[in-house]
Amino acid sequence: MAEVKLIGTLASPFVCRVIWALKIKGIPYEFIEEDLSNKSPLLLKYNPVHKKIPVLLHGEKPVCESMIIVEYIDETWQQNSLLPNDPYERALARFWVKFAEDKGVSVWRMFRAKGEELEKTMKETEEMLQTVEEHGLGEKKFFGGDNIGMADIAFGSVIYWLEVIEEIVGERVVFEAHKFPRLHAWIKNFKQVPIIQEHLPDWDWMVAFGKRRREAVLASA
Amino acid sequence: MAEVKLIGTLASPFVCRVIWALKIKGIPYEFIEEDLSNKSPLLLKYNPVHKKIPVLLHGEKPVCESMIIVEYIDETWQQNSLLPNDPYERALARFWVKFAEDKGVSVWRMFRAKGEELEKTMKETEEMLQTVEEHGLGEKKFFGGDNIGMADIAFGSVIYWLEVIEEIVGERVVFEAHKFPRLHAWIKNFKQVPIIQEHLPDWDWMVAFGKRRREAVLASA
Repeated sequence: MAEVKLIGTLASPFVCRVIWALKIKGIPYEFIEEDLSNKSPLLLKYNPVHKKIPVLLHGEKPVCESMIIVEYIDETWQQNSLLPNDPYERALARFWVKFAEDKGVSVWRMFRAKGEELEKTMKETEEMLQTVEEHGLGEKKFFGGDNIGMADIAFGSVIYWLEVIEEIVGERVVFEAHKFPRLHAWIKNFKQVPIIQEHLPDWDWMVAFGKRRREAVLASA
Repeated sequence: MAEVKLIGTLASPFVCRVIWALKIKGIPYEFIEEDLSNKSPLLLKYNPVHKKIPVLLHGEKPVCESMIIVEYIDETWQQNSLLPNDPYERALARFWVKFAEDKGVSVWRMFRAKGEELEKTMKETEEMLQTVEEHGLGEKKFFGGDNIGMADIAFGSVIYWLEVIEEIVGERVVFEAHKFPRLHAWIKNFKQVPIIQEHLPDWDWMVAFGKRRREAVLASA
């Protein structure tokens, strides 16, 4: 029996963060596919507060909330550290993780919005990107310098899913290369990290899956 | 010149979290009162992303976002630790910190709402309290056991300000003792910690200040 289990779906940006962290650390795990249209007793038992994926089970101990899971993984298995040692550098990384958590919401909202509401979420997304472009990256390869860390994992899912969602939604593109050159260079670097490259959900599958899902969401709204 | 400076206002629940952490650690600091109606160049320089208080200045290094500051303080000065050593216990504490951050928003919204919107924020606050009552505390004195830690600091400001805001708003009381016995026992324990008792903003001053502020907010809405 696997010591580490991950409850989730492969299409979730939050689950993907945890997969990246486990792969970076080299931790084997069992993936338990969750059916979000009919949540399992396992999910309800282990995340009674939010009833959301991902949930990491380490032995019988459940950990919830994607970035808290990533930090738990980082503290439990210390190889290939995802946070620097210096408290100030750690605070900066956590600042951008929190920013991705709080402001990334506009990207998830884009997926479920149309008309005026869609335009609003696109504007919010643009503001979010602008802030990261101006203040987050500087001339660094990754948020923390030369290696990927927690802030890259947090934004990696936001930005890759943004690209997918823009393709699905099919409106004007917010994440334009000439407006956000640093972010474009960064996401390219991010995707070129071998572990990330191997564990980025397939573009065509995501777009096809997302288009069906978005139609269903808008039809039931 | 003080090595540690804190930019804020004493009426802010977020600033108060940082004051508690600094006092628990025994770190002297200079308090720089911020005028939120006319934000200082200092605030705009050191928190260009959010332009919000609190900002901790450690030497020339700014740290923003209240709970990230608290964690920075905890990692920089290691006496009277605010997080347990065990990674799983740390993840649980962070889970409740994040919950306070995300769901505590309903309390801050109560302060600015009236009519239907106020009723909505009160219901959201009630659900938030119910979740903490059921899942957060158990029979423990504090979130992490016998000593106060990061989750207590996060919720301490949410619950104390909730009590103050309920007094200011003057509607039905959401935080009733018979509905939330564990949370009531916990906030009593929290307020009895000498450092907290000494650094809890004065009730009468908060209520008087808050009443004037709420009137101004509602008048300009």
